[in-house]
Amino acid sequence: MESTNPMETPLEQAVQLSHGGGGQEMNKLIKSLFFKAFDNPLLCREEDAAALMLQGNCAFTTDAFTVSPLFFAGGNIGKLAIAGTVNDLAMMAAKPEYLSASFIIEEGFPLSHLKQVVESMAKELAISDAAIVCGDTKVVPRGCADGLFITTTGVGHIQRSGISAHGLQPGDAIIVSRDIGRHGSAILMAREGLTLDSDLTSDCATLWPAVSALLDASLDIHAMRDATRGGLSAVLNEWALASDVSICVEEESIPVADPVRGLCELYGFEPYDLANEGSFILALPEAQAKQALEILNQFEFCSCAAHIGQVDKQVDNAAETNAKGGKVILRSAWGSSRYLELPQGELLPRIC
Amino acid sequence: MESTNPMETPLEQAVQLSHGGGGQEMNKLIKSLFFKAFDNPLLCREEDAAALMLQGNCAFTTDAFTVSPLFFAGGNIGKLAIAGTVNDLAMMAAKPEYLSASFIIEEGFPLSHLKQVVESMAKELAISDAAIVCGDTKVVPRGCADGLFITTTGVGHIQRSGISAHGLQPGDAIIVSRDIGRHGSAILMAREGLTLDSDLTSDCATLWPAVSALLDASLDIHAMRDATRGGLSAVLNEWALASDVSICVEEESIPVADPVRGLCELYGFEPYDLANEGSFILALPEAQAKQALEILNQFEFCSCAAHIGQVDKQVDNAAETNAKGGKVILRSAWGSSRYLELPQGELLPRIC
Repeated sequence: MESTNPMETPLEQAVQLSHGGGGQEMNKLIKSLFFKAFDNPLLCREEDAAALMLQGNCAFTTDAFTVSPLFFAGGNIGKLAIAGTVNDLAMMAAKPEYLSASFIIEEGFPLSHLKQVVESMAKELAISDAAIVCGDTKVVPRGCADGLFITTTGVGHIQRSGISAHGLQPGDAIIVSRDIGRHGSAILMAREGLTLDSDLTSDCATLWPAVSALLDASLDIHAMRDATRGGLSAVLNEWALASDVSICVEEESIPVADPVRGLCELYGFEPYDLANEGSFILALPEAQAKQALEILNQFEFCSCAAHIGQVDKQVDNAAETNAKGGKVILRSAWGSSRYLELPQGELLPRIC
Repeated sequence: MESTNPMETPLEQAVQLSHGGGGQEMNKLIKSLFFKAFDNPLLCREEDAAALMLQGNCAFTTDAFTVSPLFFAGGNIGKLAIAGTVNDLAMMAAKPEYLSASFIIEEGFPLSHLKQVVESMAKELAISDAAIVCGDTKVVPRGCADGLFITTTGVGHIQRSGISAHGLQPGDAIIVSRDIGRHGSAILMAREGLTLDSDLTSDCATLWPAVSALLDASLDIHAMRDATRGGLSAVLNEWALASDVSICVEEESIPVADPVRGLCELYGFEPYDLANEGSFILALPEAQAKQALEILNQFEFCSCAAHIGQVDKQVDNAAETNAKGGKVILRSAWGSSRYLELPQGELLPRIC
């Protein structure tokens, strides 16, 4: 990215209010940029809505992306807007198929940046063979938005039903697909202008290939969720509550990259609370944990997948084990344990 | 609305960054506000995505709403965000069924205003018996957005296929469902602080009941589109191009309310270019025009529906009639005629 202020781009190279006005300029922008990058017959019919042939149980999900900065190590808002929504479908065992994309653009936003974002979206869509079939573009005057916001909504057929936050069973193994806290750390670094470790990149990635392989192996997955805002802590707490079980995880088993650990020490964060954008948590019978790890390890972005804990078999012996329905216990290497709580307050705004 | 600056709301009565952080505060806001207003079992399951049973041809559409001001005569951003998306489905002859809603909220936005918007959304959803089944909430720091943006995406089964901008036939009657230009005028009045006519309200409305009645009557509708950004001019021009026909409309037949006409004269606008949010255009065989008007007139918001023109039967006699494939002709009461062009530039930013 240029180091100059992007909002000082010459007029003809920037998004203008007329690009969102529903007239000639908008039509030109849509055709020359969006249709070109997202090219597919459904999108290009230009009706009020796309017509999709759907049969059976489909997942439907939406996310608004307001990440700041828009470009960060390992991705940008476009890659994130696709991966985020595609991953929400994947977590329901749904094949990502059709997406909508709506853009809210600040007047003066460089067209070159918009092109870069849109091209990242197209590239990320290809990983799961999904397509953007409808969209919307709004331009707001300078100062009324911060560069660019994108909302994506996805639809896909559910390949296997019953995978749910309510589905955890006593004795289930808890697996994390990779080291945690990368996305939150990458955004923090970008925002603070830190260059302490140039190797630290966001985990931002499309998870469908790994999920699809797990489904193909007929593993009996009980729950699956990507650990985005609120990180690992949020997912485990939501699961413990939804399934009314106690989950116990081992601090030592949770993979955390050194630069993420360093940033956490520097800022007083916990890696468990930091956001991820390409990491997911899996609950399945203990006996299938090894096979699941072997499958995950075949994917580059899951090469350090780890079995980090389990759903407690009994929660009635609370006095001795701290195990309590709805609670998550973090056990340290020294044998001490504490509740891992749902994060409170705002750790890091605008991470996604 | 209070006349004081809404962004000076005391902290505890305002949206805070933590409400978008993925932790406890966000969960509380979602449950106490969104789940309460949009209450339905699909939404309240709290999975990563809603699971929908869909069979057959479905319409899928999205729109971002950035209207300013957020509250205007005849509606607010919430009513608009539902009516807008539901209408895009209706225009494809799709029954509005499932919607997603994603909120981008500026830190400091009054919770009371958010509640009012959300309640308007729930009320508008009820008109077409649609439901919000998934959502997302993001909060951005003060100054990074202008109060509130909402993106809605809708899915619904298509009741009749083949209705399309590409479907116009020579000889088709062109019908408009009501007087045009109200929404653009209401926004302009609100923004300029004009009170010249307190009766002028936006046409913002859910069109499904009227569309459903037209479909039930088995009318042979060729094309149907709501005239939003770009107004009547944009719809007619897009149709003329998509179907490669010439469309001729009579100035005298196009209903325009007096206060809208007055505002147009004052600001130099054309009512044909002004945005609407509850007006649609219909193309169907001339012989069915009377029946279509009778059906429309049964609905309060279509009481001044009018037959405004037709698709030219021949475009080869161009020299004599000005008729040309892809063109729209506006004929005045005095017999003169001119091309009605696709609006250019930005008439009025942030009208939806």
